[in-house]
Amino acid sequence: MAELMDGMTQERAAETAVAATVASLSKHFGDRLATGRTIREQHANTLTWLGNEAPDAVVFAESEEDVQLIVRICAANGVPVIPFGTGSSLEGQINAPKGGISIDLSRMNRILAVNMEDLDCVVEPGVTRKQLNDHLRDVGLFFPIDPGADASLGGMASTRASGTNAVRYGTMKDNVIALNAVLANGEVITTARRARKSAAGYDLTRLLVGAEGTLGVITRLTLKLSGQPEAISAGVCPFPTIRSACDAVIATIQSGLPVARIELLDEVQVKACNAYSKLDLAEQPTLFVEFHGTEAGVHEQAERFGEIAADFGGGAFAWATRPEDRSKLWQARHDAYWACLPLKPGAKALATDVCVPISRLAECVDETKRDIEEMGMVAPIVGHVGDGNFHTVTLVDMDDPHDVAKARDFISRMVKRSLAMGGTATGEHGVGQGKRKYMEAEHGTATLDAMRAIKQALDPQGIMNPGKILP
Amino acid sequence: MAELMDGMTQERAAETAVAATVASLSKHFGDRLATGRTIREQHANTLTWLGNEAPDAVVFAESEEDVQLIVRICAANGVPVIPFGTGSSLEGQINAPKGGISIDLSRMNRILAVNMEDLDCVVEPGVTRKQLNDHLRDVGLFFPIDPGADASLGGMASTRASGTNAVRYGTMKDNVIALNAVLANGEVITTARRARKSAAGYDLTRLLVGAEGTLGVITRLTLKLSGQPEAISAGVCPFPTIRSACDAVIATIQSGLPVARIELLDEVQVKACNAYSKLDLAEQPTLFVEFHGTEAGVHEQAERFGEIAADFGGGAFAWATRPEDRSKLWQARHDAYWACLPLKPGAKALATDVCVPISRLAECVDETKRDIEEMGMVAPIVGHVGDGNFHTVTLVDMDDPHDVAKARDFISRMVKRSLAMGGTATGEHGVGQGKRKYMEAEHGTATLDAMRAIKQALDPQGIMNPGKILP
Repeated sequence: MAELMDGMTQERAAETAVAATVASLSKHFGDRLATGRTIREQHANTLTWLGNEAPDAVVFAESEEDVQLIVRICAANGVPVIPFGTGSSLEGQINAPKGGISIDLSRMNRILAVNMEDLDCVVEPGVTRKQLNDHLRDVGLFFPIDPGADASLGGMASTRASGTNAVRYGTMKDNVIALNAVLANGEVITTARRARKSAAGYDLTRLLVGAEGTLGVITRLTLKLSGQPEAISAGVCPFPTIRSACDAVIATIQSGLPVARIELLDEVQVKACNAYSKLDLAEQPTLFVEFHGTEAGVHEQAERFGEIAADFGGGAFAWATRPEDRSKLWQARHDAYWACLPLKPGAKALATDVCVPISRLAECVDETKRDIEEMGMVAPIVGHVGDGNFHTVTLVDMDDPHDVAKARDFISRMVKRSLAMGGTATGEHGVGQGKRKYMEAEHGTATLDAMRAIKQALDPQGIMNPGKILP
Repeated sequence: MAELMDGMTQERAAETAVAATVASLSKHFGDRLATGRTIREQHANTLTWLGNEAPDAVVFAESEEDVQLIVRICAANGVPVIPFGTGSSLEGQINAPKGGISIDLSRMNRILAVNMEDLDCVVEPGVTRKQLNDHLRDVGLFFPIDPGADASLGGMASTRASGTNAVRYGTMKDNVIALNAVLANGEVITTARRARKSAAGYDLTRLLVGAEGTLGVITRLTLKLSGQPEAISAGVCPFPTIRSACDAVIATIQSGLPVARIELLDEVQVKACNAYSKLDLAEQPTLFVEFHGTEAGVHEQAERFGEIAADFGGGAFAWATRPEDRSKLWQARHDAYWACLPLKPGAKALATDVCVPISRLAECVDETKRDIEEMGMVAPIVGHVGDGNFHTVTLVDMDDPHDVAKARDFISRMVKRSLAMGGTATGEHGVGQGKRKYMEAEHGTATLDAMRAIKQALDPQGIMNPGKILP
């Protein structure tokens, strides 16, 4: 009874705190504060099977000072703060399980500087990767990280995004030079200078990249840019089996071939893409590859890859030499998620990813595929296999408790398989809410305690995107 | 008077704590504990002009469990712990300004695994980079980070080392996959799995890389390896001026040429190297370059670089095609520090480094060189200029207070110049004791406070290598 009363008292206190926060925000932000149900629900998880847990209000920030003010008001009331970019995260990173204020950063979308000589740029967090690349098109540079969705760069940093180009250009970890972030105390930190490297103190840049807003709200990013390759060559190569395709990938990476993208689609995914993107690929396990370099270099790389693929029974190769053919190919790859949906009409798509040492890739994909077949599921496999990273898109009938339970079981088995092979619970989607339960198994108690100590040190009230990452 | 008494009381308490620690360590480690003055002094700074501040004792650890026990005994007594690899750090990282126990990790020198298929290896922290590369020679792989000294890999991670290959292969930040470390509470954390990438929680790997032992003692490293290039081509190219050499570097990086090393030596350094390493290079500002790739790729790269160099008045090019000629060249580059010493007999060499955005490199080197001339100093310039990183080796007569003051002034001006150009106080030597005073100017109060909060969270007693990094 006392417990129930305590619970009710706490709930009432939280409601009062939220009301005070909203009143205060309203005074400062006027119609940039939104409390309507639809807009609140749009600012919580909408993409995956995880439930929608809407924030209490949404504020549209337009400057770093706005973010500071919002965080300070929330901190004064002990109310959660959830940063929002484009909402394309997949593990519930933007949900508000404890309520709170969603800071919509999409209006902070200015490209502040492009330093062509230094191959870097400075952007606000709401700039999307396509916006940045459109801006860079004419100056011969590009930002290589490409998770598929046209995500915001702040969100990509927060989830340590990677995607198809990571095998050559690295992940967000490797392509963020410096960040500004507003901490729970309302102060702005600048994590690093614009120099290419530094040995001057703790690497707060890398600490914030992948922290999913639980340590601070990113308000500015300095990013590495790459020169647009002089020549690009892309192609598609079918293989007799998943294992032969994976073995070709392993051999490619081991040979040191600087492949820019090397993506696996299993035969289920190829079939889905054929239907969705109007392609006519052979419905077999298939690698999509791309090479960047000089004309001569690209030619040499493609030739060597062809030899490796042939060693594992791959071919015939179909090259996409014209830019529009390449675009069509990669658009189809990026649309893989959407292409899956018609495979089981009415189902929700549960995209999940793991990443293993590349020596275990074929084994891991093989066992996962066997699971899919034995469990009788619809779950195409796609993957950034050059990194040992792959995804399943499990289609789940959310109205069938048995189907839901089976899908949960399948994902849990997949994560445990990855961990047992020296892999991780997530290569690029992040932890959010969906993968929290695996953090103990992945990191162990001492390491998690260290993470908790850091969280506690920087956010003693626990207001920064609570309920994410740490179990 | 009360203050003096307090001071004396504190000092006596510290002495008692040290005595208790040494007694306890002696019981566990027997003759692996050393308290002799010579050995203690050998475990403090010996390389640079910074004073030698010896620890109270040295323990030779042979296992992770040893390190845990040492840290636990020190923690119980509130006594500092200073990790020691080979002692080649340059900013006083191994000094013991508050006394304490030096943990010599050089006997933890086992290579625990080489995973050829995954291009990675697992090593103890006392393994040196040459030891690792000797071990890898026959399997076609190598570890690319090369700071010159045959440093321990634990020490290289701790100082975020980089060196000549960093322009192509990155720094320690980019080449450490995972670490084990003993924290101040005696617990071992494992920062990551062996997968190539992960989005599973805070990046404790990157937090420990560059933390100089102030957050934990590294006891194991998983490192990325690279394939030995099929072909290597190296050469030397003199330029009429420092500026023209720097401009050629800038153009090279901007063109996207994947140069593996690009090192600047000013004419003073070239002269010193000629004398020390018996070379006959033209005594002009000179670039040492190296290209890695396929036979055709290396040829193409060298040709393009030749064209860029010529555009800036560089040449004639001298190519070192035979492996022994290349070795001689790079040995000379690595011996640059020693080559400087005869330039001012009896002087101490004060090696310092800064790193600026590459667009400011020519200007920064130029201004620094003018300072050297106007201040009447002997200070050759060498640099990993592809990263915007360069060093001066200032020769200082330590018996002449005027000379010492001048050198301090020069370094301070150089750091401030770098910061004013968007650069950092140190590109690769780390902060240690020598660069602490610049951290406020580099990072600002809010960012330093965040670093302090993390330090306090993980090391509440402040026993982990105190007096380093944070001012």
